[in-house]
Amino acid sequence: MQVAKAGGAVAMYSAMGSLGLLGSPAGAAAVLPPPAELEMTKRGGRKIVILGAGIAGMTAAYEMAKIGYDCVILEARSRPGGRNWTIRRGDTVTEVGGAKQTARFDEGEYFNPGPARIPQHHITMDYCKELGVALEVFGNVNEAAYYYSENAGPLSGRKIPKRAAKADMRGFTSELLAKAINKNALDLPLSQNDKEKLLIYLQREGDLNADLFYKGSGRRGYKVLPGGGETPGEQEDPYNISAIIQSGFGNSFSSEYSLDQQMMMFQPVGGMDQIGRALAKKVGSVIRYQAVVQQIKQNGSGVTVSYKDAAGAVQEVEGEYCICTIPLSVLKDIPADFSKEMAAAIAKVHYAETGKIGFQFRRRFWEEDENIFSGMTTTNMDINQIWYPSSGYLGRKGIVVGYYNFGEQAVKLGDMTLAGREEYALKQGAKIHHQFYKEFETSFSIAWHKTPYNLGGWASYSSEDRKTIYPTLNKPDGRIYLAGEHMSYLTGWMAGAFESARLVVNHIHERVMTQ
Amino acid sequence: MQVAKAGGAVAMYSAMGSLGLLGSPAGAAAVLPPPAELEMTKRGGRKIVILGAGIAGMTAAYEMAKIGYDCVILEARSRPGGRNWTIRRGDTVTEVGGAKQTARFDEGEYFNPGPARIPQHHITMDYCKELGVALEVFGNVNEAAYYYSENAGPLSGRKIPKRAAKADMRGFTSELLAKAINKNALDLPLSQNDKEKLLIYLQREGDLNADLFYKGSGRRGYKVLPGGGETPGEQEDPYNISAIIQSGFGNSFSSEYSLDQQMMMFQPVGGMDQIGRALAKKVGSVIRYQAVVQQIKQNGSGVTVSYKDAAGAVQEVEGEYCICTIPLSVLKDIPADFSKEMAAAIAKVHYAETGKIGFQFRRRFWEEDENIFSGMTTTNMDINQIWYPSSGYLGRKGIVVGYYNFGEQAVKLGDMTLAGREEYALKQGAKIHHQFYKEFETSFSIAWHKTPYNLGGWASYSSEDRKTIYPTLNKPDGRIYLAGEHMSYLTGWMAGAFESARLVVNHIHERVMTQ
Repeated sequence: MQVAKAGGAVAMYSAMGSLGLLGSPAGAAAVLPPPAELEMTKRGGRKIVILGAGIAGMTAAYEMAKIGYDCVILEARSRPGGRNWTIRRGDTVTEVGGAKQTARFDEGEYFNPGPARIPQHHITMDYCKELGVALEVFGNVNEAAYYYSENAGPLSGRKIPKRAAKADMRGFTSELLAKAINKNALDLPLSQNDKEKLLIYLQREGDLNADLFYKGSGRRGYKVLPGGGETPGEQEDPYNISAIIQSGFGNSFSSEYSLDQQMMMFQPVGGMDQIGRALAKKVGSVIRYQAVVQQIKQNGSGVTVSYKDAAGAVQEVEGEYCICTIPLSVLKDIPADFSKEMAAAIAKVHYAETGKIGFQFRRRFWEEDENIFSGMTTTNMDINQIWYPSSGYLGRKGIVVGYYNFGEQAVKLGDMTLAGREEYALKQGAKIHHQFYKEFETSFSIAWHKTPYNLGGWASYSSEDRKTIYPTLNKPDGRIYLAGEHMSYLTGWMAGAFESARLVVNHIHERVMTQ
Repeated sequence: MQVAKAGGAVAMYSAMGSLGLLGSPAGAAAVLPPPAELEMTKRGGRKIVILGAGIAGMTAAYEMAKIGYDCVILEARSRPGGRNWTIRRGDTVTEVGGAKQTARFDEGEYFNPGPARIPQHHITMDYCKELGVALEVFGNVNEAAYYYSENAGPLSGRKIPKRAAKADMRGFTSELLAKAINKNALDLPLSQNDKEKLLIYLQREGDLNADLFYKGSGRRGYKVLPGGGETPGEQEDPYNISAIIQSGFGNSFSSEYSLDQQMMMFQPVGGMDQIGRALAKKVGSVIRYQAVVQQIKQNGSGVTVSYKDAAGAVQEVEGEYCICTIPLSVLKDIPADFSKEMAAAIAKVHYAETGKIGFQFRRRFWEEDENIFSGMTTTNMDINQIWYPSSGYLGRKGIVVGYYNFGEQAVKLGDMTLAGREEYALKQGAKIHHQFYKEFETSFSIAWHKTPYNLGGWASYSSEDRKTIYPTLNKPDGRIYLAGEHMSYLTGWMAGAFESARLVVNHIHERVMTQ
């Protein structure tokens, strides 16, 4: 990442360059400021109050501690990590509305209800390295998983391997373009040689025959697989071109092309919360758990935050600055003396409705019966997606994500009872995997918009918001700085929280050094 | 896999159904024959001589032992596995021609010179399950790796992220086809509604703008990545359409679409030889190592194989049947009384020239500097491919495959000295990774066509061969049955060896039961 350089006095005394926190995501480790600068910070004994022990809050404390600041973190829950969370046997959650769950998964099984995958270019990878969090591949692309649609033409109600849908769409579209080129039907900015090379590409891309027709392909799978001895394999016919277009499956291919969803992707070995736990190992001593913020006040010299402790008593903590990582969906209802502009901006941000359910099955039928090892099935039903686990391959049991949905679909399922969600998702999933009912053991579901202290999955800005309210949120309100995934262009990703926290650390240190 | 049913007496007494070895790759475990049949086999005390303790030979012994046959395996080397092989510190190999290497990799580092990846639908997965071999993902598709070409137009000599090449080719071709459709330039078998849906698909597939033009895409990467605070990211312009066509990069996309190279793919944790070792745990007691076959003879009642033992003494072993898994490239020069037709077929099969080099680097610069975690870079240079390791993520060192090439390129590098190969591959690789020389520590290279007891990578049949000589090879020659990857339509894959061995076990048991 290229970064604008700060000049003059700021550059001399500030963290902008020396902390290295604005540098490339390829290097997360902060470079310490020069010893003299470090001494200045330490002599100050400057106290920072951080609200929230999620990724952003703990990262801020971790980086500030490196340069001598004295931080305290208030965390409403009794665990670190925030949305960085892994559900295991015995974990409980009570939703807004009172529905309470306790996870009944087997020991050793787990479910990541929040973030579940890490793109290889995100700074999250660097923090995993620095914190010693072991990674394994998250199977975000698996050609053996399915597309399944209802009310979408002749292929409705059939599970179609992703490999087959891709081969057919690429085959037919390559054939059509090859024909257009051969007919000189296009006014192309290409030489004859370019056109010839483009035809070669299309032939390969679509697996077209010598006459540039698509007649099916081994890429889509076989009726009889090639094997030993005299078993050359038997190909299947492609789907009808109109049927495959009407299915709309092709509209989902590009989700795998987006920069943050391309392979390779990763996950921590043993659960996503390994990241939050590793951060908590570094900064756990400054976290006050079960500290529910009641009010935020500031004046010319500092910030005072009052909170209710575990016993219900109201306590106060003061700091020279405050880094507030509380989701705006929650912050908007906490009394605070923000400027009018800031308060209005905080209140306006929409948070995504989103939900997930983890299904424990007694048998890994997706592997044993269908040769699907990780990846996800994509549907147009309310369950939206089914995810197969990216760990425990060839093992006995496993946790499948039975739905991961957004918006209206998430509201619909979130409004059901816990048992209702389970039954609904089993019923829709069973249209794709007949084994669902037979092999099902237990479930755990999260509706993020109904989860206390989150009240939403992530900040969901319109492009208008980015122009109007987002700049306001990015400016400190007096001595209060906002941080978190919502203070980034990587909303919904842990990297947004990491990067935002690093920015705020830089800004505060810069301010301290230039006062 | 659907299998033709055998009828009559054969079906009654044979293994065809009861062994279950012809069944779906989804279930490798053999179903034992009925007890009565099993007793028949055991009473016979029938001895099978198996030549070669590679995957095919050991699988044959493993499956035959389950049903009571008495097997002996002759293996020329002092280790099991054949091409299923992992090189670790201290391992040695002497090539045809005398060049001898000893691996100097650090303890814990390893290099798979032979098979290195397993498609999720191959029977190899089932054997890993049955044998308790733990699997992890092999990163066969990584959008962060590069294409690099020389003498291929304006992009020559530049390393281009795969994600950028794909986004541009998909963008431009989607734009072209969208224009052709809008101009009604094609005589399409599509309704107006189909066309509209196809346009929606193309817009998504190519990331086209509202006017259906491709103007670049975040999918291809950014000049400045989206990040925290006021960092929306800055996109780069796409390459010129003619330049990206001339690069030929697009011709490589489809290698990732082929059924056996699609994601997900897997590798055993700790090295590919975990499979061979696991099989050897089951059948090791019947393997005679350093037993180099000298002659194969048969008569109406059995097969006699003479071999040189470790001490150089000639020994003989007899069996009622022989399963020969020796590569045909080696078998053709072993004296044997095969029928003329069989001998001619054996002699005619071409074996692929192929080579690999493992480079140990002192630092995982591909991860640390370039955010590439596994996957492969594709070039048109003699090194052909560079593979980044699919294990040890975020660790200190790692083994990169510095070349994996075939045919003329493999012959060219194989003909060099060991030091010459290393230097040549470093020099070509350094065009892509400037870190190559600085971080290099040690290498180990294999030229399979120069490796004793292999003399080639895998059987390489023409479609003519499949019609003429392949049927001959598939028939038993008297009491001798051929097995191995070369006896399959999965040549070059371990699955070919597994499936072929299972077939031969079936055939022999069927023959025994119907005699």
